[in-house]
Amino acid sequence: MADTAGKPIDCKAAVAWGPKQPLEVRTVTVAPPGPGEVRVKIAATALCHTDAYTLDGLDPEGLFPCILGHEAAGIVESVGEGVTSVKAGDHVIPCYQAYCGECKFCKHPDSNLCVSVRAFTGKGVMKSDGKSRFTVDGKPVFHFMGTSTFSEYTVVHEQSVAKVDVNAPLDKVCLLGCGVSTGWGAVYNTAKVKPGSSVAVFGLGAVGLAVIEAAARAGASRIIAIDLNPSKFAAAKEFGATACVNPKDHDKPIQQVIVEMTEWGCDYTFECIGNTSVMRAALECAHRGWGTSVVIGVAAAGQEISTRPFQLVTGRKWTGTAFGGYKSRVQVPDLVNDYMAGKTMLDKYITHNMKFDQINEAFDLLHKGECLRCVLTF
Amino acid sequence: MADTAGKPIDCKAAVAWGPKQPLEVRTVTVAPPGPGEVRVKIAATALCHTDAYTLDGLDPEGLFPCILGHEAAGIVESVGEGVTSVKAGDHVIPCYQAYCGECKFCKHPDSNLCVSVRAFTGKGVMKSDGKSRFTVDGKPVFHFMGTSTFSEYTVVHEQSVAKVDVNAPLDKVCLLGCGVSTGWGAVYNTAKVKPGSSVAVFGLGAVGLAVIEAAARAGASRIIAIDLNPSKFAAAKEFGATACVNPKDHDKPIQQVIVEMTEWGCDYTFECIGNTSVMRAALECAHRGWGTSVVIGVAAAGQEISTRPFQLVTGRKWTGTAFGGYKSRVQVPDLVNDYMAGKTMLDKYITHNMKFDQINEAFDLLHKGECLRCVLTF
Repeated sequence: MADTAGKPIDCKAAVAWGPKQPLEVRTVTVAPPGPGEVRVKIAATALCHTDAYTLDGLDPEGLFPCILGHEAAGIVESVGEGVTSVKAGDHVIPCYQAYCGECKFCKHPDSNLCVSVRAFTGKGVMKSDGKSRFTVDGKPVFHFMGTSTFSEYTVVHEQSVAKVDVNAPLDKVCLLGCGVSTGWGAVYNTAKVKPGSSVAVFGLGAVGLAVIEAAARAGASRIIAIDLNPSKFAAAKEFGATACVNPKDHDKPIQQVIVEMTEWGCDYTFECIGNTSVMRAALECAHRGWGTSVVIGVAAAGQEISTRPFQLVTGRKWTGTAFGGYKSRVQVPDLVNDYMAGKTMLDKYITHNMKFDQINEAFDLLHKGECLRCVLTF
Repeated sequence: MADTAGKPIDCKAAVAWGPKQPLEVRTVTVAPPGPGEVRVKIAATALCHTDAYTLDGLDPEGLFPCILGHEAAGIVESVGEGVTSVKAGDHVIPCYQAYCGECKFCKHPDSNLCVSVRAFTGKGVMKSDGKSRFTVDGKPVFHFMGTSTFSEYTVVHEQSVAKVDVNAPLDKVCLLGCGVSTGWGAVYNTAKVKPGSSVAVFGLGAVGLAVIEAAARAGASRIIAIDLNPSKFAAAKEFGATACVNPKDHDKPIQQVIVEMTEWGCDYTFECIGNTSVMRAALECAHRGWGTSVVIGVAAAGQEISTRPFQLVTGRKWTGTAFGGYKSRVQVPDLVNDYMAGKTMLDKYITHNMKFDQINEAFDLLHKGECLRCVLTF
């Protein structure tokens, strides 16, 4: 045990005081982990669009003040009463999608939507006492997504940490906490892409590129990458796209363009943006008879998807995925092992590295669409 | 060959002259079958809501004048050039969903949406010459759904007839041409309902009851039947429903009622009405994490389905079915065999029998919701 065990720790964190305000990098106090909790020293954290979405005030359930961040890796500093699956010194990836192994969802082979701590992480507090472990000048600051990785130290539920290979570089595998894993899992677990199939990917950020990478590895013979920004096409081809399409180059709806390119549509289509119009387009260019369309992007609050029911009656399937269907604590360690074995292109998603203090600059980069992933280290 | 072979036949048919007009039962002339075509003497035809839908003018692609009808059984009178799979005297069920065995859709294990004759049946004509085989006073009358069974004789493409057991009673197995097969197939082929699962069925007409029958036979342990008309609940229970719910008895949305009854929703939900609001409700009470919702009903033209994408991201699947996914010519004969072996409740769907001349009365019954299936015989 570290000599900090059992004591509050004052450390650096980025506090989100309210929507549309820059984060304040300052000292916060992180209480010791309660029963069933783990305090983690974060080594590296990346930024994801969900952080930006909440910071931009688009999530009506967003709670402020809070500490954002959910794509990170670190080292266990100490554990609370009853914690047995990890110990101080273990290298871990915090997982916003928990895994308890006991609930109806963990026990079901087709779901990763563990509900063990959901009611509490949704309220920004811990399960054992309904309180936050973060304070600023004695006043509580909410947790976010059960992870709050924009802090040198954070406290998470035991259900929300995956123990990984101690040799894995934390400033790389931090990406496995969200976007890249989500894209891969959407292909392997949700859509179950088959060899020789055709795939359309809408949106070429990190998630979209991860879908392309996984689709190529799954043996898809045709991978059509779609984005309004043609500067993203080079990366898409590097990851495995066989064709790139810019909807701006066409007078007709993009779904019609894709259907005409492929005769009947693609076997699998993926929406990696969070735009409900694109979700509809993705469905409508899924192959008549058996095409599956997977919603990955998170839409703005209140927005709805729609289509003619004829699209479903003629055999299309519309579904979605959260964290790519991976059962987090069980499968994230495998993803790390795959990386260590050189099986994935994980490094290529990291386009920027910065110090944690530059976090507001990193958000600017994300908003400008100029980076895939920016990794911040302390 | 019958001595009518190769000659036009004058016979009784019900002509739909225009939307919202009663059918006129009168003499029509049925030309001999062209190449690849089969002329069938219809023994019995039932009425289905899709006939009513077109007759009510709700299908913007409906063509008039036409001869409706698509749920029937009969005996081959003669065949056109090149037809090898059936011969005069064979007992057959016309299938509005064709099967050629050669196209991309027929060859795919998961689709029954054969396209071999679709472009022609959609236009109310035959493939070999782009013309109709029906005339009244020398003027052409369109075919409907490639079947036009509201006629004592009809001409269909070879791809659209399933040869069935010669001993099967045609006034019973005619039902296997559409609604009942669709409900069964939605359970077995589309949703693939598993033993021990929970099911919700919206709409308790013949299709809904067929879903209940099949779900019970598939081993579902909980089958919730939903309808605004409680007079349908007794039949639902007879077919296998374990609970019946009338949305009018509740102040909250029906999807919320079902979710509360089941804690997380049903493993499988089926919309058997054609109402887009109910389609949404059915999706939203599918089980979080893995629930599948199947659209079976045909919605009015121009109507759209919608929901929050969160419903999909949290693991629900939205899909649909046409003719229950059955590959018609291959599988309808099996359905007839199952009936002959006493494995199905087919007889119970027939609530009324009438003579063909009473067809307008039969439509009135259908509109009033007072019959499941009315079988007309010549």
